[in-house]
Amino acid sequence: MGILDKVQTPKDLKSLSLNELETLAQEIRETIIQTVAKTGGHLAPSLGTVELTLALHYVFDTPRDKIIWDVGHQTYAHKLVTGRKHLFSTLREYRGLSGFPHRGESVYDSFGTGHASTSISAALGMAISRDLKGEKHKVIAVIGDGAMTGGLAFEALNHAGELDKDLIVVLNDNKMSISHNVGALSHFLSRKFTSRAFRQFKKGVERFLSSLPAGENLVQLAKRSEDSFMSLFTPGMLFLSLHFDYLGPINGHNLNKLIKAFEHIKEMEGPILVHVLTTKGKGYEPAEKDPTNYHGVGKLYLRENSGKVNYFSTEKGITYTQVFAETLVELANKDKRIVGITAAMPEGTGLALLQKHFPERFFDVGIAEEHAVTLAAGMATQGLRPVVAVYSTFLQRAYDQIIHDVCLQRLPVVFAIDRGGIVGEDGPTHHGVFDLSFLRVIPHLVLMSPKDENELRHMLKTALEYEGPIALRYPRGKAMGVSLEESLKTLPIGESEILIQGEDVLILAIGHTVMPALQAIEQLQEEGFYPALVNARFVKPLDKTLLREKAPEFRAIVTIEENVLMGGFGSAVMELLRDLNINIPVYRVGLPDQFIEHGGQNILRGKYGLDKEGIYEHVKKVFLKYVSKRKIRQITFRKRPGAQSRTG
Amino acid sequence: MGILDKVQTPKDLKSLSLNELETLAQEIRETIIQTVAKTGGHLAPSLGTVELTLALHYVFDTPRDKIIWDVGHQTYAHKLVTGRKHLFSTLREYRGLSGFPHRGESVYDSFGTGHASTSISAALGMAISRDLKGEKHKVIAVIGDGAMTGGLAFEALNHAGELDKDLIVVLNDNKMSISHNVGALSHFLSRKFTSRAFRQFKKGVERFLSSLPAGENLVQLAKRSEDSFMSLFTPGMLFLSLHFDYLGPINGHNLNKLIKAFEHIKEMEGPILVHVLTTKGKGYEPAEKDPTNYHGVGKLYLRENSGKVNYFSTEKGITYTQVFAETLVELANKDKRIVGITAAMPEGTGLALLQKHFPERFFDVGIAEEHAVTLAAGMATQGLRPVVAVYSTFLQRAYDQIIHDVCLQRLPVVFAIDRGGIVGEDGPTHHGVFDLSFLRVIPHLVLMSPKDENELRHMLKTALEYEGPIALRYPRGKAMGVSLEESLKTLPIGESEILIQGEDVLILAIGHTVMPALQAIEQLQEEGFYPALVNARFVKPLDKTLLREKAPEFRAIVTIEENVLMGGFGSAVMELLRDLNINIPVYRVGLPDQFIEHGGQNILRGKYGLDKEGIYEHVKKVFLKYVSKRKIRQITFRKRPGAQSRTG
Repeated sequence: MGILDKVQTPKDLKSLSLNELETLAQEIRETIIQTVAKTGGHLAPSLGTVELTLALHYVFDTPRDKIIWDVGHQTYAHKLVTGRKHLFSTLREYRGLSGFPHRGESVYDSFGTGHASTSISAALGMAISRDLKGEKHKVIAVIGDGAMTGGLAFEALNHAGELDKDLIVVLNDNKMSISHNVGALSHFLSRKFTSRAFRQFKKGVERFLSSLPAGENLVQLAKRSEDSFMSLFTPGMLFLSLHFDYLGPINGHNLNKLIKAFEHIKEMEGPILVHVLTTKGKGYEPAEKDPTNYHGVGKLYLRENSGKVNYFSTEKGITYTQVFAETLVELANKDKRIVGITAAMPEGTGLALLQKHFPERFFDVGIAEEHAVTLAAGMATQGLRPVVAVYSTFLQRAYDQIIHDVCLQRLPVVFAIDRGGIVGEDGPTHHGVFDLSFLRVIPHLVLMSPKDENELRHMLKTALEYEGPIALRYPRGKAMGVSLEESLKTLPIGESEILIQGEDVLILAIGHTVMPALQAIEQLQEEGFYPALVNARFVKPLDKTLLREKAPEFRAIVTIEENVLMGGFGSAVMELLRDLNINIPVYRVGLPDQFIEHGGQNILRGKYGLDKEGIYEHVKKVFLKYVSKRKIRQITFRKRPGAQSRTG
Repeated sequence: MGILDKVQTPKDLKSLSLNELETLAQEIRETIIQTVAKTGGHLAPSLGTVELTLALHYVFDTPRDKIIWDVGHQTYAHKLVTGRKHLFSTLREYRGLSGFPHRGESVYDSFGTGHASTSISAALGMAISRDLKGEKHKVIAVIGDGAMTGGLAFEALNHAGELDKDLIVVLNDNKMSISHNVGALSHFLSRKFTSRAFRQFKKGVERFLSSLPAGENLVQLAKRSEDSFMSLFTPGMLFLSLHFDYLGPINGHNLNKLIKAFEHIKEMEGPILVHVLTTKGKGYEPAEKDPTNYHGVGKLYLRENSGKVNYFSTEKGITYTQVFAETLVELANKDKRIVGITAAMPEGTGLALLQKHFPERFFDVGIAEEHAVTLAAGMATQGLRPVVAVYSTFLQRAYDQIIHDVCLQRLPVVFAIDRGGIVGEDGPTHHGVFDLSFLRVIPHLVLMSPKDENELRHMLKTALEYEGPIALRYPRGKAMGVSLEESLKTLPIGESEILIQGEDVLILAIGHTVMPALQAIEQLQEEGFYPALVNARFVKPLDKTLLREKAPEFRAIVTIEENVLMGGFGSAVMELLRDLNINIPVYRVGLPDQFIEHGGQNILRGKYGLDKEGIYEHVKKVFLKYVSKRKIRQITFRKRPGAQSRTG
């Protein structure tokens, strides 16, 4: 790693020759591959932008010039050349480097990202500030063709075109978002549609003309030659129509061409779109061949003899996502009304399985969560049963559509919310820890979360039978490993499940936290404490009957949720108890009022007291507070009350 | 009203001659003007679409064919010809006709709207359903050029272009959204940019070519003639690039042309965009001349002699919006960092005043709330103090941007949230009753709400001095009428204000509800009840010191908020008391877990117990529960404890 070792800041790039830069690119690639093999991470996106990163830092004067990386999963090379090489081995680890740009981490990270389509808005804000303050520097947004399908990017382009600010947008076109890209925009960029759109256009014009009297505007249009129609279809057309200068396409792996182009662009003014073609996974053959599966990878298996890494998942066991996907297909087999919608995450959400079985009932809308939800609303008005499968953190992007288009009209849309709770290494931009709070606010919405993958199956069936909006939320990663009942059950809406009868303290757990609570109770029982445990199942509606009948028998209630405590499940329990006029102290276990850092799921769950040990500590404290020592001694010698299910 | 009286359903239109349809259009206009003069409403938008409405219902077979009206404020003619004429005089009144399409109101309202940019998504969902079910009918989205700037509309166009479904999008281009339209798209539609964009394009190509070696793609591009470049700039270009057939522009007030065009389009297949030019306020001269102020109007004054109505607001007194706007200008005079951002609502939010004084520090981004917020985040990173002025209900559209771009990075963005709480006649799509709940969930965000317009002034100053994200929320309409202190104060973050010392019951009120609470207390005092009253000021952070010190002195707490109770202010108070280990029952007054219907603000506040009488009843009940009759008799003869401010 001769050259990379000498690059402490981007300034060090400027003295390198083109040959040295090319060697550096290879060193960076090797470093990324070796590191991600150990840490996991966004391999393919970061391999695709090595030359682009070097060219930008070589030509522009960062951090005075600002680069905003859209999504930010393509910034490993950027991190390596901006003084973070010595920390790179800690990538995505607890207390290590973030997997995304992070303003707190480096002055070269001018804007934190993680979600898609934000970069042009942020860059425009910076350009406006620069001009108001009379400063001179460049602002560069780097955005993928996938992120360009997000409405936010279009809103920003539209506004930037109007303002005519000095602003550079680099369209990193790899013909992919995370999965294969979708949408007319994508075809347009790849010019696939030229002849078809041309035919359409001509056909439409001819037909329309025949219906109009002479003198309409279109008559003149028709007089233009076919050649002139054809010229409509350059990749820059869309951006020109939004007032951007358009340059490209440029080979994004040719450092010489990139540098020349950026040197030229540096002297230009006004909004400019530079169209750069890159290959996702560039330089690592397995990733080039299969960029979807190499988009974000777990730790890789390094095959020693070849010196190459090959994809090998070290995690075993079925995931919640898989169980969801298989159950959905099972249900879709019997009910033709069921369709699936994803916003550019067919693999991540598992909907790819539905696509395989029922391609005509699968819809990938691109990175467009708002559209995904309102599309589902439109479908539901016509009797379909749309399932919007989405990560919790991205559902935040469709909040108004859930309220205004789905719930206000009480339409039967199913939200299958994956990655609810702590997601791990992707960190604060990706944790799904607000959903229980922001969703339970919405009238008409039913909100549930399964204790394990078997219950997820029943909940999906329940959701698809429900005549209104309904959401089920489950965590990222491995499921509990319980056996799956073959026949699916419909769960009564708003009814919880008593897992353990007990006394003094009633534990109400929701979703993923039920199992660690169960384990904690085993330990507590050994010490003579016998809390009751209820799997709440529903955050909304809560089980009013159970709380009214059972809560008064206890001295304290402990609620457990992998969600922020602000407005969360525990808060809902307190509200209901108050409405029932039951005065029992409620101890809420959950996440504090702060953004949760990145780190392994287990590490974070441990830190925030959401694993077996944490729950044990919490509950024991409550026991010690409410149960006198004398009684504790007594109960130590008593028999353990038997477990029993309320519904079973 | 000869012809309109005979139209019970759209079928009745089909037997009318063109002359009769034109007469009907005039009758409908007259009915709309006369009715809105009495009820208030969206005058200008609905006057602009009379012919378009008649042509659509004449040509298509509604309700089998579906029309989705984007935003829905342009649907008065649609309501008049779909069986609702006899109810039209109840427009926007409590229990009367909704001002927007509403699925519960008519089978002709195929999709409820209110917020912008949803129609194409919903229509595409319906088109997909139709094809999956093997049905045959048309789906028509009618969307304004303003709503077209919303990212959701772009996401839907992009997806629709890909799917190639049979779908008609009518672009109702009136060169306005609510205010004057903005964005490159708008110039593009109006062809204003032709020569400029052409110059830009040529310039960029020439410059770029000079920097490139021979053989690049662009060389071929450059060889095309100037004529062929010019042909890039037709209004249809953008839509063609998204795979839509494009037809138009058509005069939207020429019934003959509209009908012919739609009859032709009815026979076409695939995604089609029809570009219709209309005039907002058409047929009512004052509205044509000033469509912004006639967009939504209060009741009008009918000048008797002329038979014409003229704009005359019957509401007097300064509004919260005005006080906000004037204070912002006052502060902006002293602090150059302050800029204002609105999403197409310069008049509604009052930012037009900032625009008048500091045009270069005012930004109207179009109907693009997501972009507005992320733009502000970008500005804040560079030291500006952006104020995003937005209606509460529309802020729902930028939830992820608030979390991910602003609060996660702890950027000093001020959210000036107008129309918080019950807004009145616009109804469930427009009430801002979820914001306290969904905002307080977000870490780092400070959330406050003033008791009156004087406090709003201090809060705005406080917000602009705060080094992090901060929101202030105030209601629609007339302010309290209190006198305004000239000098602005900085309020201590998280400190409430004790308005009345009292005993037994502590009332914590937030925002608009403080004043009716004060009035209710006057009445309670006359009956010998002496509750204490605290103006909470902050929903987040709550005043921990006050609650810790004062709450234990009381027997019960009553919280009052014009927000849903689910996860709201009262819920926050319960959470904090629990964390402080204070066991006092909290009675929460606020809105129930349902969507709130339309109707006058006073009517709805009365219905939901948020006016003086309602608060009086609530608090008295709590007194009667916790204070024994003996004590009540005693206190009747005691002296009233003096009012006192904690901070003053």
